[in-house]
Amino acid sequence: MSTSTGQREGRSQADRSRETRRKLMQATVECLVERGWAGTTTTVVAERAGVSRGAQLHHFRTRGELVAAAVEHLGAESVLDLKERARQVNGSTLAVVELIADFYASDLFTAALELWVAARTDPELKTVVVPLEVRLGRETHRLAVELLNADEAKPGVRETVQLTLDLVRGLALANQLTDDGKRRSRIIRHWARMLEDSL
Amino acid sequence: MSTSTGQREGRSQADRSRETRRKLMQATVECLVERGWAGTTTTVVAERAGVSRGAQLHHFRTRGELVAAAVEHLGAESVLDLKERARQVNGSTLAVVELIADFYASDLFTAALELWVAARTDPELKTVVVPLEVRLGRETHRLAVELLNADEAKPGVRETVQLTLDLVRGLALANQLTDDGKRRSRIIRHWARMLEDSL
Repeated sequence: MSTSTGQREGRSQADRSRETRRKLMQATVECLVERGWAGTTTTVVAERAGVSRGAQLHHFRTRGELVAAAVEHLGAESVLDLKERARQVNGSTLAVVELIADFYASDLFTAALELWVAARTDPELKTVVVPLEVRLGRETHRLAVELLNADEAKPGVRETVQLTLDLVRGLALANQLTDDGKRRSRIIRHWARMLEDSL
Repeated sequence: MSTSTGQREGRSQADRSRETRRKLMQATVECLVERGWAGTTTTVVAERAGVSRGAQLHHFRTRGELVAAAVEHLGAESVLDLKERARQVNGSTLAVVELIADFYASDLFTAALELWVAARTDPELKTVVVPLEVRLGRETHRLAVELLNADEAKPGVRETVQLTLDLVRGLALANQLTDDGKRRSRIIRHWARMLEDSL
């Protein structure tokens, strides 16, 4: 009996810890999107998450650590979400390119952009962000290959997949200050046709 | 005599005023590239430019006004520079796409990126930056059409030119934290071939 209670307590403590982490990461992403890097201080995030400063420090020692973990967490969730959506659409090239473009034109991109730009002029933050950029980049590439059903053994196909990702990154950037949705759809349809001929 | 001296003095005062403006704008771009938006305060810029705070305020009332003017000035200079370079290269599609990609992977892009990202969460700055983004976007599009010798009356050509600009914007972003030069060249060569077939 006592062992079983102990296990239950252990589990629920682990659950609470995970829940605290999740709340902190979610509040961080919301802050990045609403207020940008400058407005995303550990104090603001702890308050928004309803978590004590002590508990926050237990999970994340620095602002950089917290923000990088939040973006990585959102990245992993977004990848799962994208895979789930991909299962639900017809497999047309246009539908897949639209999905990938939507994956970029999202809070994930906005939050990551705040982080990338801040890291450029902050050497300490940069040491956290560069490996994260590499991991997210690899994961996204792998995902695009899978969704487009691309055979990278064929010459030029690897470049075409990368080009797709560079293009949707550029489109996502153009969508930051104003709603570029109409133009974006036109470019995506155009690229989907070129991509179909090319793959 | 006295009129002529007056005109000379008038001219040289105008020259000095232009020179002060130029110094301030150059110092602003250098600050944005080195320290980012947060580090680009009017005090730091005036000090770096060797201009008094009074003279600075005479030319630019706010930080937003100063930074937007600096990015616009650099944009105009970069366009002239790009046109000059374009005259010097052979007119191959690859050479032109490389020029356009270099135009983006520059201090102009880095400074503009700092400004765009800051403007996203700063409504006052945004009112200055959105019209600037529109102007720079139009000018760059016009330039790309001219350099690529593209006939926008043909169906799809307008989209292909825009796609080129979205792509090089995405590539420029990927180059912010780490040197992405090798991969970038490969993608540009690949796109130049597709573009040639398409135009």
